[in-house]
Amino acid sequence: MPKRTYQKSLIQGIGDDAALYASDEEYDEIICMDTMVEGIHFLKTTLRPFHIGYKALAVNISDIAAMGGIPLFYLVSIAIPSSWQESELMDIYEGLHSIASQFQIDLIGGDTVSTHDRLVITVTVIGKVEKGRKLLRSKARPNDVVFVTNTLGNSAVGLSLLLEKTCDYPFSEQEQFFVRCHQMPEPQVAVGRLLAQSNLRVALNDISDGIASEVHEIAESSQVGIILQANDLPRSPFMDQYQTEQQLNWILYGGEDFELVGTVSESDWQTFEEQCKKAGHPIRKIGKVIEMQGVWLEIEDQMIKIDKKGYNHFHKDR
Amino acid sequence: MPKRTYQKSLIQGIGDDAALYASDEEYDEIICMDTMVEGIHFLKTTLRPFHIGYKALAVNISDIAAMGGIPLFYLVSIAIPSSWQESELMDIYEGLHSIASQFQIDLIGGDTVSTHDRLVITVTVIGKVEKGRKLLRSKARPNDVVFVTNTLGNSAVGLSLLLEKTCDYPFSEQEQFFVRCHQMPEPQVAVGRLLAQSNLRVALNDISDGIASEVHEIAESSQVGIILQANDLPRSPFMDQYQTEQQLNWILYGGEDFELVGTVSESDWQTFEEQCKKAGHPIRKIGKVIEMQGVWLEIEDQMIKIDKKGYNHFHKDR
Repeated sequence: MPKRTYQKSLIQGIGDDAALYASDEEYDEIICMDTMVEGIHFLKTTLRPFHIGYKALAVNISDIAAMGGIPLFYLVSIAIPSSWQESELMDIYEGLHSIASQFQIDLIGGDTVSTHDRLVITVTVIGKVEKGRKLLRSKARPNDVVFVTNTLGNSAVGLSLLLEKTCDYPFSEQEQFFVRCHQMPEPQVAVGRLLAQSNLRVALNDISDGIASEVHEIAESSQVGIILQANDLPRSPFMDQYQTEQQLNWILYGGEDFELVGTVSESDWQTFEEQCKKAGHPIRKIGKVIEMQGVWLEIEDQMIKIDKKGYNHFHKDR
Repeated sequence: MPKRTYQKSLIQGIGDDAALYASDEEYDEIICMDTMVEGIHFLKTTLRPFHIGYKALAVNISDIAAMGGIPLFYLVSIAIPSSWQESELMDIYEGLHSIASQFQIDLIGGDTVSTHDRLVITVTVIGKVEKGRKLLRSKARPNDVVFVTNTLGNSAVGLSLLLEKTCDYPFSEQEQFFVRCHQMPEPQVAVGRLLAQSNLRVALNDISDGIASEVHEIAESSQVGIILQANDLPRSPFMDQYQTEQQLNWILYGGEDFELVGTVSESDWQTFEEQCKKAGHPIRKIGKVIEMQGVWLEIEDQMIKIDKKGYNHFHKDR
């Protein structure tokens, strides 16, 4: 970790979803970098080459969304084993271009190098956010409403289906929904932008490691506690086929949903909810910020303290 | 490669040392990304962990230097095999901090993830350059002077020593000079800045793949030809112990010197040379730009056409 700061324009360094530094008079710049490693974050049986590119860029755009930003440019570095075909490399780039064109962001550089072993892909995304409108994890206050976008746990269901059956399996329509959530997550840039432009006090995080872990991060950064209501955690109707305990496990700890979880003050909640509904982005109240530090789940009149245990991929990250 | 450009602020995308985009009214922003893979770009016997960090950042700062820029921030992603010690990871970060503090640049983000195989390190550096002062490869014109900073081929000598004897060997003082050039290259930011602030028309490249390859890039981008004078290619006096042909091979094709090679007009040459001398940065005239496309070496009254063959590391990159 850096011992001191040299550049005065730096606003937020390591510790949030992305770094932030002063650029022009209207906007601050946001930059983030994430890596996916074959055998750790994906297998050839869980993501096709197209999805590797798509997802590597999606997870970075999601970090920009969690800062309320607009993604602008990206760079990509791929260390590719010599056993992979040239056409597979092209498919990775196709996946990158596919999501890049949705968000109208430009590829501006990077590197493709050989490796003897497994594929490693690193993406950097540069974005911008209006000055003073950055959404950091540390802004939650007691009595705030905790909310989340869309539904939770789908990516984890998709992963478990893919690990069991591989991506060549003829999945049912319901299964395809979950598989798609795992392979092609949708970064919630639009909701992040609504919040950034709203002038509200907001804490925000994107869900990469499971909502339990992300809510812990907000609580710790803001030095508050959070109670989640088990019955309010939004889930897809397709989840009904699974046992309740299994569902809750996926929802809390599954990870890689890339939805946004955040807090707004009680008095702002209704207006914000209506704004999101009007713009076609479902959000839901799932809990409340309290003074006492820690994270609890309220379930059937019981309060259970939940730990930070996040998504561990196939092996534990450092 | 991208099919179209979405962002109007993009000035120079893929194709030069780094990308460039409009930021504020005074400066444009520069961003680059480079990856080093164990077994391809280095071995545990050629770079210690400290040097891996140092060099991974140095090669990116060198790309900013080649654009005439000031480096500001960096991000680093390390995929580290579980067989590596925690202390080795710390040493990589020490190497990064060491060169970062020389150039007063801040670490603002990144990722550390596990891998099953060999180490992969990717660094992104963000810098800035005064608007309109960007130094691109495409600006060489017939009759320009071709120049280079310091001396050439040292990194290649260092690598051959390290491959033969490994980094634990008690090298002589002369050998240590070459080993250090390979392990801890010095990005030529100061000369890049002199050029950017000089208002001169300049083509510029940093020497990552050997001067033959870099001069080819300038010639091709600028649609001109270049003649290099063999006797003027600057070499360290420590080189004398090696055979002339071996020396020339290292100088032309060795690569990883991270010196700057460029062109300025004949009428600007003397002033620029004096400015550099005064600032303590030795540069030397090594050749001339001509109209006829191609790259030649003038050696003992012969003109030899030289190919682009660059530095191939341990295996050929894609």
